[in-house]
Amino acid sequence: MNSSPSLTISNGSSPSDLPPLLVPHPLSDAWSTALSTKFTLISPSSPHSTSGHAALVSISYNQVDPVFLDQYPSLRCIVTSSVGLDHIDLEECQRRGVQVANVGESFSTDAADYAVGLLIDVLRRITLSDRYVRDGSWVTRGDYLLGSKLGGKHVGIVGLGSIGSAIAKRLKAFGCKISYLSRKPKPDVSYKYIPNIYDLATESDILIVSCSLTKETHHIINKQVLQALGKEGIIINIGRGAHIDESELVQSLVRGEIKGAGLDVYEDEPDIPKELIEMENVVLSPHRAVFTPEAMSDVIQICIANFEAFFAGKPLITPVVVAD
Amino acid sequence: MNSSPSLTISNGSSPSDLPPLLVPHPLSDAWSTALSTKFTLISPSSPHSTSGHAALVSISYNQVDPVFLDQYPSLRCIVTSSVGLDHIDLEECQRRGVQVANVGESFSTDAADYAVGLLIDVLRRITLSDRYVRDGSWVTRGDYLLGSKLGGKHVGIVGLGSIGSAIAKRLKAFGCKISYLSRKPKPDVSYKYIPNIYDLATESDILIVSCSLTKETHHIINKQVLQALGKEGIIINIGRGAHIDESELVQSLVRGEIKGAGLDVYEDEPDIPKELIEMENVVLSPHRAVFTPEAMSDVIQICIANFEAFFAGKPLITPVVVAD
Repeated sequence: MNSSPSLTISNGSSPSDLPPLLVPHPLSDAWSTALSTKFTLISPSSPHSTSGHAALVSISYNQVDPVFLDQYPSLRCIVTSSVGLDHIDLEECQRRGVQVANVGESFSTDAADYAVGLLIDVLRRITLSDRYVRDGSWVTRGDYLLGSKLGGKHVGIVGLGSIGSAIAKRLKAFGCKISYLSRKPKPDVSYKYIPNIYDLATESDILIVSCSLTKETHHIINKQVLQALGKEGIIINIGRGAHIDESELVQSLVRGEIKGAGLDVYEDEPDIPKELIEMENVVLSPHRAVFTPEAMSDVIQICIANFEAFFAGKPLITPVVVAD
Repeated sequence: MNSSPSLTISNGSSPSDLPPLLVPHPLSDAWSTALSTKFTLISPSSPHSTSGHAALVSISYNQVDPVFLDQYPSLRCIVTSSVGLDHIDLEECQRRGVQVANVGESFSTDAADYAVGLLIDVLRRITLSDRYVRDGSWVTRGDYLLGSKLGGKHVGIVGLGSIGSAIAKRLKAFGCKISYLSRKPKPDVSYKYIPNIYDLATESDILIVSCSLTKETHHIINKQVLQALGKEGIIINIGRGAHIDESELVQSLVRGEIKGAGLDVYEDEPDIPKELIEMENVVLSPHRAVFTPEAMSDVIQICIANFEAFFAGKPLITPVVVAD
């Protein structure tokens, strides 16, 4: 007997003509409205089963691992409403013939904008200066400490995917000197390729983490990398919390071994090390780099387009290619 | 009898061979050290007089008006350690044959970086989200409100001088659509020229004020302009406080007639309207857009180069050209 949750057409007792789409987690109104005009939405708790070919998964709710895939053996397509893929066991999906799509570059520009915003914020102390004005210090204490210039800084980008590339394009316009680390050199870019994270840190004033989270990039920013970055160095993380060894980062900041940080992600969200909360040289943000309402709307459309392509037997629009 | 303060060689009782330079206000150590190796620094309160040919003036201390010029009738060159020139009566200087230089584009890139930083901050709520994280709201209240996308926004730049041009170049890399207002269309730029501030506001999602403060641009952002900008509109001001009718801006923000603002300058610095301090949709900064230590160092060198050119009878390096 198969113990998988059975799949049901949720909007009536008789099958609809619309293709069935498994949605194993709650949907916001915007998602629900958009998807239900195109698909018959199926929840895992429904009493009737179907052959449920495709599923929408969200990074917030679903680990797509062998346990999940065993529950839905007839799944042939998974679309995730994220850029990140660390919740999906891609090799297992490939082995089982399950196609995977993510939302491609929809979030990339927002994430890149945010990375640049965090960087300017840390360098020029914008967030801190807002506090300085609001608490009356400008009046009582006078001129505020100067920030640091962005132009001319050496920026090392960890991961030159769609987000990293968008960051590089933006920072180029600010007069920064861009280097990057990736598995191999990218054709068609003029930025300096540095194949080793320690060398990248040594040559950079600023490190920006914008790669995928994999076994290889877990804690890619460790104690040695922070030491190589040095006392004037700044870290920006809009990737995943686990890209950085957070306790080492905190210690480096406490000891003044690096200069500052702009963080959108943390190892144990929403919990954040107490030391960070009390620091003036960090800008903290609650995992919002990739989200704007405009991007969310784009993302819904991209997910729909992927499902429509799948049900029409066509190639997915934004398929995930397992990296070599 | 001439009631002008007499000018004295401050570093000794006998004249130095170094050219005399009037410094009518206190200097920081960095300025003092750099200038005193090249010039004999003269303070207005010194007991001996000289023919003092050149003067360094600062926007924070000096109004260069007929009263000031009457005090130093032998002045033939004024260099200001600012980009802005609203403290200098340029026509009066021209009439009296006094050359004027400012610091050219040294501050422009820093000011442009800051404008972009303020804009991303307002749109994506970075400063506010830092407060949200630090006060524990991420843990107790959950996900934070989404910000707004920068890419695709129509940005109207008020004044396409060196700062405005640097802002435009940066925002182009973010995918913004740039329009600008200036006295006349700029050759060699592809941005849309809009000769009227009301039309510019109507067509823009975001207005960035980066022009000089003159009689014509005093309160260039008034009630009607704010209304034309509309409910979704955002204002960034890195110019001067008096570019905006501040009480109208505050009312527009209070009534939700515009969406937000990023302000580095105010009409009565360091005093700021109480309403702004209590608002969540504004980012406030204590007139720091143009300052970084790196730029300050550049600025000292540029001022020295101008003085050296003047004393050598050569054209100034970064002369101010009175606009036609």
